[in-house]
Amino acid sequence: MVNRAQRSSAGGGVGFVTTRFFTFAEGPEKFRLESGEELGPVRLAYETYGTLNEERTNAILIQHGFSGDAHAAGYHHGADAPGWWDGMIGRGRTFDTDRFFVISSNVLGSCKGSTGPCAINPATEEPYALTYPLLTINDMVNAQKRLIDHLGIKKLFSIAGGSMGGMQVLQWLASYPEMVHSAISIATTHRHSPQQIAFNEVARQAIMADPHWKGGNYYGKTAPANGLAVARMIGHITYMSDGSMAKKFGRDPKEDRHPFKFMPQFEVEGYLKYRGNSFVKRFDANAFLYLTKAMDNFDMAGGRPLHEALTSVTAKVLVVAYTSDWLYPPHHSREIVKACKVAGVDATYCEMESGYGHDAFLVEIEELGRLVGPFINKLYENAVRKAEHGLGIRSGHRRDTGDGGGWLKRFGRWLWGGRIVGAAFPG
Amino acid sequence: MVNRAQRSSAGGGVGFVTTRFFTFAEGPEKFRLESGEELGPVRLAYETYGTLNEERTNAILIQHGFSGDAHAAGYHHGADAPGWWDGMIGRGRTFDTDRFFVISSNVLGSCKGSTGPCAINPATEEPYALTYPLLTINDMVNAQKRLIDHLGIKKLFSIAGGSMGGMQVLQWLASYPEMVHSAISIATTHRHSPQQIAFNEVARQAIMADPHWKGGNYYGKTAPANGLAVARMIGHITYMSDGSMAKKFGRDPKEDRHPFKFMPQFEVEGYLKYRGNSFVKRFDANAFLYLTKAMDNFDMAGGRPLHEALTSVTAKVLVVAYTSDWLYPPHHSREIVKACKVAGVDATYCEMESGYGHDAFLVEIEELGRLVGPFINKLYENAVRKAEHGLGIRSGHRRDTGDGGGWLKRFGRWLWGGRIVGAAFPG
Repeated sequence: MVNRAQRSSAGGGVGFVTTRFFTFAEGPEKFRLESGEELGPVRLAYETYGTLNEERTNAILIQHGFSGDAHAAGYHHGADAPGWWDGMIGRGRTFDTDRFFVISSNVLGSCKGSTGPCAINPATEEPYALTYPLLTINDMVNAQKRLIDHLGIKKLFSIAGGSMGGMQVLQWLASYPEMVHSAISIATTHRHSPQQIAFNEVARQAIMADPHWKGGNYYGKTAPANGLAVARMIGHITYMSDGSMAKKFGRDPKEDRHPFKFMPQFEVEGYLKYRGNSFVKRFDANAFLYLTKAMDNFDMAGGRPLHEALTSVTAKVLVVAYTSDWLYPPHHSREIVKACKVAGVDATYCEMESGYGHDAFLVEIEELGRLVGPFINKLYENAVRKAEHGLGIRSGHRRDTGDGGGWLKRFGRWLWGGRIVGAAFPG
Repeated sequence: MVNRAQRSSAGGGVGFVTTRFFTFAEGPEKFRLESGEELGPVRLAYETYGTLNEERTNAILIQHGFSGDAHAAGYHHGADAPGWWDGMIGRGRTFDTDRFFVISSNVLGSCKGSTGPCAINPATEEPYALTYPLLTINDMVNAQKRLIDHLGIKKLFSIAGGSMGGMQVLQWLASYPEMVHSAISIATTHRHSPQQIAFNEVARQAIMADPHWKGGNYYGKTAPANGLAVARMIGHITYMSDGSMAKKFGRDPKEDRHPFKFMPQFEVEGYLKYRGNSFVKRFDANAFLYLTKAMDNFDMAGGRPLHEALTSVTAKVLVVAYTSDWLYPPHHSREIVKACKVAGVDATYCEMESGYGHDAFLVEIEELGRLVGPFINKLYENAVRKAEHGLGIRSGHRRDTGDGGGWLKRFGRWLWGGRIVGAAFPG
């Protein structure tokens, strides 16, 4: 499990990484989905950073957002840009790879290496397209659970994610409460509101209105690029705030002030068109349909009072929302926290001042780290302290051991099983 | 100018009405647009309600929003629904047709009877399509000015409108301050923000992505209905609030709870699709492009400080915004009021509590009337009082005349020229 590229990395980053694949349900017993339909074999793309300790207790599962992938940190060979949450993951970073074993898995249904509608159906040797079964957030989490089982991990030290990733965090708490020691839910909701559904529906209509979509059977032919670009543009507006757009673009004209005939004239128009068109190169239109539908159908408590979905949760929960996020506004997060309190769950709420809208959790990494870092490290230290206490070691002894944490490695194993790798504790 | 249908109307409505047309720039001298291009002949569709007094001083110009038309009040023969602001216009209604002569004119560039891109260009005998010149809010107002001149009106008692109609109200103040006695700006902005531009741009991209659009040359062929429907759906989301959507739809499934394969499943999805598809029957895709672009380019002060565009204004101004309107949020209206104050303009601001979002000015007619009614009637009474004072009549005499307002009809004519038709004044 050791990531060799990490060792050669400089400046805290995890260095070069490669995406791996885990395949299950290869035999006659298929993977059963919430809809009752079955799928198999199922492949998940994933990456890991840091080292899993012997007791397999230091794993943190990172959940990506709607259009994300398994590549959360480090560099792929030949790529200019690092993974999507690189600033959060690495030596001395928020998810410290000197302490933690970080797993990032691509969701089921995606087009980023996992089995989604663009994958080949072995029964027909054609892409699934719309024969792919309807997918839920629950199904994504159940597939991830197979990966976590495969890695031999009984309990995740933490799970963290924003947006659709946050929904997976919440679903993990509801589905596998005994497997989660702590959870970080960021800029998300426990169920999609009609406005959120509406934006997704219009985006889907834009894709399906493209004549190249052809009921989803466009593989090997012309992709519904125009429809997908429009769909992405809609998304982009919801990810930014009015303020962040004003700051980034103002009403700046693109070049020539003379406004003419529906070519992008303002900077914001050119930006949206550019982002829409570049998205087309990296994303599949059918995956867009399935993943947005999964979000729209997400209702963590399934219509029950929300706290009833949280009664078995023992994890410590951190809920983060951003003031200018109007896609998943703070009041959604406050409902989650309230339900946690009603269910007796140890939950902390933090509403962060930001002008970046929903994008903030991907943009304001430093601010997010300042919040998540202490939360996760405090839990880590508590776990270690618990181990010490169980062995009758007073915490004051720590500083005097002088063996660079060696005693921790020896004793920490006891209660919570931590093989501490180069941990540095504040005095 | 007497509207005969009005006389036969019951319950305060103006009864049956018909749309009229005013054509100008028919000769060699064409109508010059802000872009420098010329257009002619130019036709405007308009309706009037109530009676213009002899002195032509009791006219109120109503401005419709983006997809509206001249039909603001009353019924067209054979139609089930009245005009779009019917609840505001009629006997004893906010714009009281017993007092006022109400004019509603369709904007230049629209597809609702005025000369727009779907009109026939007499030079080519083909629809203008994209040979139609680029249009601005300023151009719309300049065309309306021709209509007002044609009606022999030197000064409008008031102008009122919401959304794009509000932009026209503001542009009237900037362009023809001497012609405006009062102005009511509702749920609008003095210039489009990047977010507003972004929504419009995505809607335009949706239209232009439709292969039936064919560079605008779809007349007589298949219209770009799918693209236009998607464009309208985007608009609809921005007109409602998250709260009004939740109230109207919740997460109610349409019929069968079993969510499947991208057919509208939630009520909100079905509603958007229905509204999008019905819009296609009543609106022209090219008009959508031109009118949204006019809004995007709108910048009342043309880059100068806003108050500089208002220095010549003598009108009393009422600015109305709605708390849940996130398309034209209240802070835009507050900027307008602030600039009025800096320019020494008598402006009143009212932020109305509403859950209906931008739609509120079309939905919450009663609440709007409670605000606008006293504003407009106070001005009316002041004007009459001024006339009394000019003739040395003390206001206390009013009650004792006992001739049902006959003295007002006689004397009111003097200063502000009001031929008061059945006015009822509070004691």
